Amino acid sequence: MAFTFQINDDVVWNRNERLLKKAEMNMPKLIHTEIQPTRLVEIVADNHFINGFKAVTSEREISKLSEYGLKRDEKLVLDLGDHYVGKFTIDIDSIGSPMDAPLYLHLKFAEVPAEIMAESKEYDGWLSKSWIQEEFVHIDVLPVTLEMPRRYSCRYIELEVIDTSPKWQASFCNPTFIAESSVTLDDVEKIELADEQLQAIHDVSVKTLQDCMQTVFEDGPKRDRRLWIGDLRLQALANYATFDDVALVKRCLYLFGGMTTEEGKIPANVFTAPSLIPDDTFLFDYSLFFAVILFDYVKHTNDKEVMEDLYTVAKKQIDFALKQVDEAGRLVLDEAWPVFIDWSNEFDKATAGQAVFIYTLKRFIELAHQTNDQDLNIYQTALENMETFAKEKLFDQKKQQFIVEGTDEINVASQVWMVLAQVMNEQTNKEIMTEAIRTQFPITGIATPYMYHHIVEALFVAGLTTDGEKLMKNYWGKMIEMGADTFWEAFKLEDPDFSPYGSPIINSYCHAWSCTPAYLIKDYLFN
Amino acid sequence: MAFTFQINDDVVWNRNERLLKKAEMNMPKLIHTEIQPTRLVEIVADNHFINGFKAVTSEREISKLSEYGLKRDEKLVLDLGDHYVGKFTIDIDSIGSPMDAPLYLHLKFAEVPAEIMAESKEYDGWLSKSWIQEEFVHIDVLPVTLEMPRRYSCRYIELEVIDTSPKWQASFCNPTFIAESSVTLDDVEKIELADEQLQAIHDVSVKTLQDCMQTVFEDGPKRDRRLWIGDLRLQALANYATFDDVALVKRCLYLFGGMTTEEGKIPANVFTAPSLIPDDTFLFDYSLFFAVILFDYVKHTNDKEVMEDLYTVAKKQIDFALKQVDEAGRLVLDEAWPVFIDWSNEFDKATAGQAVFIYTLKRFIELAHQTNDQDLNIYQTALENMETFAKEKLFDQKKQQFIVEGTDEINVASQVWMVLAQVMNEQTNKEIMTEAIRTQFPITGIATPYMYHHIVEALFVAGLTTDGEKLMKNYWGKMIEMGADTFWEAFKLEDPDFSPYGSPIINSYCHAWSCTPAYLIKDYLFN
Repeated sequence: MAFTFQINDDVVWNRNERLLKKAEMNMPKLIHTEIQPTRLVEIVADNHFINGFKAVTSEREISKLSEYGLKRDEKLVLDLGDHYVGKFTIDIDSIGSPMDAPLYLHLKFAEVPAEIMAESKEYDGWLSKSWIQEEFVHIDVLPVTLEMPRRYSCRYIELEVIDTSPKWQASFCNPTFIAESSVTLDDVEKIELADEQLQAIHDVSVKTLQDCMQTVFEDGPKRDRRLWIGDLRLQALANYATFDDVALVKRCLYLFGGMTTEEGKIPANVFTAPSLIPDDTFLFDYSLFFAVILFDYVKHTNDKEVMEDLYTVAKKQIDFALKQVDEAGRLVLDEAWPVFIDWSNEFDKATAGQAVFIYTLKRFIELAHQTNDQDLNIYQTALENMETFAKEKLFDQKKQQFIVEGTDEINVASQVWMVLAQVMNEQTNKEIMTEAIRTQFPITGIATPYMYHHIVEALFVAGLTTDGEKLMKNYWGKMIEMGADTFWEAFKLEDPDFSPYGSPIINSYCHAWSCTPAYLIKDYLFN
Repeated sequence: MAFTFQINDDVVWNRNERLLKKAEMNMPKLIHTEIQPTRLVEIVADNHFINGFKAVTSEREISKLSEYGLKRDEKLVLDLGDHYVGKFTIDIDSIGSPMDAPLYLHLKFAEVPAEIMAESKEYDGWLSKSWIQEEFVHIDVLPVTLEMPRRYSCRYIELEVIDTSPKWQASFCNPTFIAESSVTLDDVEKIELADEQLQAIHDVSVKTLQDCMQTVFEDGPKRDRRLWIGDLRLQALANYATFDDVALVKRCLYLFGGMTTEEGKIPANVFTAPSLIPDDTFLFDYSLFFAVILFDYVKHTNDKEVMEDLYTVAKKQIDFALKQVDEAGRLVLDEAWPVFIDWSNEFDKATAGQAVFIYTLKRFIELAHQTNDQDLNIYQTALENMETFAKEKLFDQKKQQFIVEGTDEINVASQVWMVLAQVMNEQTNKEIMTEAIRTQFPITGIATPYMYHHIVEALFVAGLTTDGEKLMKNYWGKMIEMGADTFWEAFKLEDPDFSPYGSPIINSYCHAWSCTPAYLIKDYLFN
């Protein structure tokens, strides 16, 4: 997910039903797996774990679950043994005198133990409270098989009896979680890494990706739960390296291709319920990435049909973006179409935006070649201009760093994206990233695995493989140390309990844009 | 409902499937009526109304409901225009940008305005919190027709949006309440009373009874929601005077008759879901009242089949009770089978209990006559002994009041039940109640319409019609003054905001045992 508060309610949309039909034809059939909790746990304080809590095995045994009669204010926590996305069912009965009042039950679904300990009443952030995974349920008549209708993303489930009556207790049995995903771990070719930490990072990445692969590539199955361009690009790469579910990528490409503005601009994200609906949010880099995702897809699949269907849509994004470039080859950003780059707004994104466009243009030009686009030379000229501008106006030869025009600000995002865009030669790229390590590391102020991914990949591209691996282990490895079953939406190495929302119950602890180590390891370390 | 905390989990039950089948054959088909809210209201403080709040018409118009987009923490209150029992549905849509988060909704269903203002978190009484009529609902996809699956008893419905997102608002339309009852007001012959207050009391009584008439005579449709002997006796009387649904009385008689202990004792109440289940609670007077209800029913219907089926069950209750009577004709109460009389335990119930048994015996003996029971003389002798004991040992000639043996305590319940049992002659009864008025009125410490009913009826039986009417107007009339649409479970004239539970959200404001003015007016004032 990319934070943004755009409201553009005057947009006129253009739906291409032919493309949307192809999107629907590639709808996956979700695979359902029954999961039984492995144990009952207690949540205890431990500063080494995320937000200060960990789960330890309870003295109560899961095999004796139905014997524990719960009355007012009593609770227990089920542990599914791993992170899953899906639905929960449980059988409930009463023990004691006849049931002379309803059962009032509070259920919490938590990705990490700290969520169980958080009080939802205390959360007052800007992000909707409706994302908090808890339910209050009245049950008038027992016994019952309680089938919770909504989907949750969790490992831990707390059952709290708010009340029975003084005459009877509630008894639980057969707790079952029906996990859902468009893929199974059996689809992934096992890779065996000598380095245990790397292996763990790889495996948790794969689990993260799996739980985000539903009827679209979701950004986070707990929260937001929708298809964003920025996440899709990284998920597609990780997917090619693991599950290789090309139909799901195709479906998502068609979804974006089929829903643009009247002029042809692609929104940053789309909804698929109650019907296919584009969001009224537009990001410069996200629109461009449509072309990159198409490039990656065609490279991986050589799928001519998709290429033919979607090339013109990609081209539109490039053409829109070109209007933002002046004669000097300078990208001039527009407030109505901001560049994302990262959550942080503490650095100037102009140079990184220029680099993203160059990165995209290079890939788009390959597609233009393949289709024999007569406008090819326009794009080649634009690319030359932008690269020349970058080299001449944005690169500080002495410092061997890209700067921001006007302020001379040097930030890590500028270096990373210029390296990924391969504006300079191999040797200079290496020098740029070496200098970035010297002056910008350890990184601070960056909270997204999305930005960390690009930093690591830039180190690999610059030939600094050891440094890339080290940063990956530091960052994703630290999440595992702190208890991650899947990788998180937000994580700051210098402030491990940071939440952009002020409470762990709103954080997404299984988030698409953090799943990329599976791709980075496979493509840069495993060969 | 009668307060009691009995847990008798070693009871062996005897189910008479033949009788229970007849109970099921008399199951009513509920009548459903669609109710649309009449207005939107604001709840404002006013000490003249129950628990200090009343509803006033809002500036917002119900006809424009769908135009009011609600966001975080915004709410509105629907007014159904009267008290109803049933289910609620409403259409919900989103206004603004696409719905980028679930809707989290809090619904409160309130019989009186004060419930809307009460905080459920603050209630910590012994009665189950699960009775509080509120729900928290997540809705992942809009638009939707929200069909609340549970039944509520209410006039006011608050819709509170806990959260949407900053990008859209929730919009509501077509709120509909599907009211349920086994009867309709059309079934009642209209009576026109010259006295407006009496007319209002009558009409509210009828509404109270209607809303308690479901698949059994419930004690309170908001809370407890089951068939108690004590309520049934009064409901049957009010029903004969109004709806005259004899099948429902028959059904309830068979339910009790079909579920007794192994020895034949009738429980104080029964459950009908998930299956027919007797409660493990036993009350001396409630068991006896089975015979009284049968007597009233047979007198009203002359239904020989029911008489034949249930006479022996009634006889069993008398025989059990007789074991508690010593040779002197003194009722000796047993802790395991307490007498209810009233919620209050501030007075000694021995003499009232003796009177209830005499009252019952007189009616049972009439049934014994009709069946030519060979044991008739046993019951006649017992009655004589008990009446003699009452006259000789429990009546203070000087004070013209019944006392409690041993302590000489004089309380209103003793006088009332001895008068209802007609132990003394007409003139003495009149003197007893006149003296009770002089020394015991205004009544304090009594919180139940159940006890007030018996006081009023005793005044009528004693020929003090004006005093009976005056007390009825004082007590039930005051509830109407304070905003009653239906009569309440608990009300103390000297402490109008009294709640036995410490919070209005647990009180039942439509309660069977308060519906008797319809019967009292018809049988004692209307002729």
